[in-house]
Amino acid sequence: PDQLTDAEKAGIEEIIMDHPAAIQTSRELHPEDTVITLPHTTIGGVGNFVMMAGPCSVESEAHVSAMAKVAKDGGATILRGGAFKPRTSPYSFQGLGVDGLKFLREAADQQGMDMITEVMDEEHLDVVCEYTDMLQIGARNMQNFSLLKAVGKTDKPVLLKRGMSATIDDLMNAAEYIAAGGNTQIALSERGVRTFDNKYTRNTFDVSAVPVLKKLTHFPIIADPSHAEGHWDLVTPMALAGTASGADGIVVEIHDNPEKALSDGPQALKPHTYKEMTHEVFALHDMLNSFNSQQEGAVVNG
Amino acid sequence: PDQLTDAEKAGIEEIIMDHPAAIQTSRELHPEDTVITLPHTTIGGVGNFVMMAGPCSVESEAHVSAMAKVAKDGGATILRGGAFKPRTSPYSFQGLGVDGLKFLREAADQQGMDMITEVMDEEHLDVVCEYTDMLQIGARNMQNFSLLKAVGKTDKPVLLKRGMSATIDDLMNAAEYIAAGGNTQIALSERGVRTFDNKYTRNTFDVSAVPVLKKLTHFPIIADPSHAEGHWDLVTPMALAGTASGADGIVVEIHDNPEKALSDGPQALKPHTYKEMTHEVFALHDMLNSFNSQQEGAVVNG
Amino acid sequence: PDQLTDAEKAGIEEIIMDHPAAIQTSRELHPEDTVITLPHTTIGGVGNFVMMAGPCSVESEAHVSAMAKVAKDGGATILRGGAFKPRTSPYSFQGLGVDGLKFLREAADQQGMDMITEVMDEEHLDVVCEYTDMLQIGARNMQNFSLLKAVGKTDKPVLLKRGMSATIDDLMNAAEYIAAGGNTQIALSERGVRTFDNKYTRNTFDVSAVPVLKKLTHFPIIADPSHAEGHWDLVTPMALAGTASGADGIVVEIHDNPEKALSDGPQALKPHTYKEMTHEVFALHDMLNSFNSQQEGAVVNG
Amino acid sequence: PDQLTDAEKAGIEEIIMDHPAAIQTSRELHPEDTVITLPHTTIGGVGNFVMMAGPCSVESEAHVSAMAKVAKDGGATILRGGAFKPRTSPYSFQGLGVDGLKFLREAADQQGMDMITEVMDEEHLDVVCEYTDMLQIGARNMQNFSLLKAVGKTDKPVLLKRGMSATIDDLMNAAEYIAAGGNTQIALSERGVRTFDNKYTRNTFDVSAVPVLKKLTHFPIIADPSHAEGHWDLVTPMALAGTASGADGIVVEIHDNPEKALSDGPQALKPHTYKEMTHEVFALHDMLNSFNSQQEGAVVNG
Repeated sequence: PDQLTDAEKAGIEEIIMDHPAAIQTSRELHPEDTVITLPHTTIGGVGNFVMMAGPCSVESEAHVSAMAKVAKDGGATILRGGAFKPRTSPYSFQGLGVDGLKFLREAADQQGMDMITEVMDEEHLDVVCEYTDMLQIGARNMQNFSLLKAVGKTDKPVLLKRGMSATIDDLMNAAEYIAAGGNTQIALSERGVRTFDNKYTRNTFDVSAVPVLKKLTHFPIIADPSHAEGHWDLVTPMALAGTASGADGIVVEIHDNPEKALSDGPQALKPHTYKEMTHEVFALHDMLNSFNSQQEGAVVNG
Repeated sequence: PDQLTDAEKAGIEEIIMDHPAAIQTSRELHPEDTVITLPHTTIGGVGNFVMMAGPCSVESEAHVSAMAKVAKDGGATILRGGAFKPRTSPYSFQGLGVDGLKFLREAADQQGMDMITEVMDEEHLDVVCEYTDMLQIGARNMQNFSLLKAVGKTDKPVLLKRGMSATIDDLMNAAEYIAAGGNTQIALSERGVRTFDNKYTRNTFDVSAVPVLKKLTHFPIIADPSHAEGHWDLVTPMALAGTASGADGIVVEIHDNPEKALSDGPQALKPHTYKEMTHEVFALHDMLNSFNSQQEGAVVNG
Repeated sequence: PDQLTDAEKAGIEEIIMDHPAAIQTSRELHPEDTVITLPHTTIGGVGNFVMMAGPCSVESEAHVSAMAKVAKDGGATILRGGAFKPRTSPYSFQGLGVDGLKFLREAADQQGMDMITEVMDEEHLDVVCEYTDMLQIGARNMQNFSLLKAVGKTDKPVLLKRGMSATIDDLMNAAEYIAAGGNTQIALSERGVRTFDNKYTRNTFDVSAVPVLKKLTHFPIIADPSHAEGHWDLVTPMALAGTASGADGIVVEIHDNPEKALSDGPQALKPHTYKEMTHEVFALHDMLNSFNSQQEGAVVNG
Repeated sequence: PDQLTDAEKAGIEEIIMDHPAAIQTSRELHPEDTVITLPHTTIGGVGNFVMMAGPCSVESEAHVSAMAKVAKDGGATILRGGAFKPRTSPYSFQGLGVDGLKFLREAADQQGMDMITEVMDEEHLDVVCEYTDMLQIGARNMQNFSLLKAVGKTDKPVLLKRGMSATIDDLMNAAEYIAAGGNTQIALSERGVRTFDNKYTRNTFDVSAVPVLKKLTHFPIIADPSHAEGHWDLVTPMALAGTASGADGIVVEIHDNPEKALSDGPQALKPHTYKEMTHEVFALHDMLNSFNSQQEGAVVNG
């Protein structure tokens, strides 16, 4: 970019070599935190913490409206929900499509919340952008480079989820595909990786990815304990662990009747459990904030 | 589908439960091998073996033409080459685009070969189909469900590559997305998975995926030792291992000057090494064929 | 065992089938937390939290004595240190042996602390038991069944570390080898597992193993952020994450001069950083305790 | 060692840095293949190929005697069988102990075969050495450094199995522990590693470890398809794949009545299937040998 000094330009090749090609994503040329501003939410930056909550899928106008109220009551300012669903099997529920977008938008507006939803392809990018405040790129599309490039040309903030076996460098490079198009309103999400043991959890929540990414990039980092674990009773401890590790926010799935959920019921928190979780997470974040404000200057091993 | 008997319909739910939702992909409802017929090539079925070879990227008209001659001389009947390249970094060479398609088509025609190339998005699907005989879906797009659905509506045979951390069931379900659209001319490719050790190889070649998939599905299985290994000197032993494990063919990258290759040079075989490899692989396949023709009936532990 | 009722005996086979063979390790037949009592420390049970700290290797009498003072000042009640070291290479420093045991014992006594150290083989088991309060079984010996059996016949509490690719069930079964010998004073330690990404961390800290194990077993669970991460600047966030996830304690490596450490220097906290970490961890544990005491009865999704 | 020249000594540090500390294991200071000579068998070196076969556990005098005859008839010259068994659960069959050693020795002698069996601890090392021709170190003990050191002081050849999540460098270093004690009669065995997919196979057979290790070390490499796969019907294709990849031999489990086997029945080949497998494997090895004898000089990409 034109605004780089000669010294900065000289540093680019070194960054490319080191954690490859993440020029705009790297904290080295952009030390200050990226802060994403939505009408009702601030993501990133010291002292800010965002709660995103909602059902896995938008199931009906009434249901998502009820879930939005629960989400808001627990302190969330962003309503999440899937209208286009990336399902492992072609015969599983694929989402309500444009109707889902409308219902989610209405529910968010009713509660004075922002909206986030996944876009799965360029074909639907325009219509999704018409309704949503923030785009989500799912784990399975993290290296769908054509989609990343297309999203990089929009003016919507993006939540980019880490692929199931994506390295930290892969995630940085995927973010760079978006940034290279001109869109630098990006948040990254750790949502569990694939390992040898998935008997008791759906994935392995790589919580240390949070402080590693906070070091490497200026983009905010959001922890997703629901998809990492796949079981509701592990969501609260992992939401706390993600917060303790320094995440800028949490994204979580809620449902008032998980047994009847159209997708991912077992990992959804019911309303009361959700509110207990957010109460604890916000208190923990406040405590961490007070620790950090007592410390001064650079991180050194002293 | 309408052509199912009641007994077959009764079996569908069981198959869904067992290796989920792979109704048309499963061998249970379709015991006989799928055989894909191209003008110069037959893929799948007892006794058939296909060699696909070519440069990683189409680099120029002259270069791909020269590489096609090498590929054909070594026994390949399908010419491979990338015109649209899925690269980890947005700043790496992204391919020649439509020019690459033209050069690859010309080179294949000059040698009387079929052509295969990757399609990365729906936007370019029509133009890729205009030139190619067979489509490739890359590992990073294995769960790009929108693309799978779009490819499922074409009449082009598809080579679907296994994702880096895709389970066997994930791969079966991804194939089902294509088949559900009506396109059942599918071949699956093992190309290495991500594990804890990548010091000496780019990925871990999961050779046992070949016989496992041959049991589960009627679609042909192609081994890709180049991407699995990432180092040319491991390609021949792994091509032999893949053949020994029962693969229906090999896809391999070649280059006359790997040091100057625009992508993936270290894993490309030079012409003489390539021809030695194919000589050995074809001889091995003939030997396996003679073993199998001596055996009769079902596989039992006797 | 004789003390089982008929109903309990009837449940054994079911437990064996479910998470295999962990009869004495399972919480199903032993719902209450195991509490391990040492002269200066209580491990396990509601409200208790243990800090174990010390150098990776015992390096000299003076050094371990100085480190013991640091450990104690930060709130640790157990002094850790290696006298027999399991090193990947036979040419690396293998520990001070019996001298190391003596120095560690003296240092612990000077500070009024308990001592823990690793035993690597049956040959040295007696001499290690002569000095230590608690035995450690390292990750590489987690399935050294002969050693587990031998340790199961001692009366020393054991900290059993999870192997680098051990599943939760493997760890439960390894604990059962110790318990089957009659020694049920066991604590389990999560210390990171091997995954596909080890560029920025030594291992992947599987923090959700903590709540999973708390559900499955009554034995206390200790988080080891030092070995999980391998880099000192990730140790504090991961100590907080482990605490937030419900661990019964933390084991951590400290060193006043990490650059000169005889082993694992890069992951050691210096004294001031260590004390900041323990201050934060204890405060977090207190907060979690206050949350839990506000909640009543069984865990349900409400 | 004293026999090194100055130039060789100068090379040691470089080797240590490169694939760490495998001084005696590395091919750089010892380019020629190690050849292990037993009374009835030669392991390693150009043109040699060894078949090791037998039951997983020694079950009775009569049974192991019958299995030895089957093994010999199929071309095996080494009889394998477990007398001391490393089982995941303490309540599983642990082996016949010293009786098992006697029965295995007798069976081997009856057939004019060599014997190999696992040693699990130093306590039983003397008695195992009294009976066996070759020692086996199991995957779970690959980093039991005390046992490796003890075995390094015996004069028995050793088959060292790769740990479930051991890197190539870990395996090289484990071999070095044995070699550092003076015992350089070592063979290494690939037997499958742990990955994210174990639905259809017990482990993932890392077949490319064979050519990688052949490059790095002069020790012979043995493929173990039985433990890698865990299912008998995958054993023959993987034995062929291991042979095709350049292994110096195969170790395989056989049983005449797998349903009744005391351990690992599902992976055992029945006699007829075993003999078909060895027939194919020997034919394949002969063919590879003829390929290699046609090639001259160093391996280059030409």
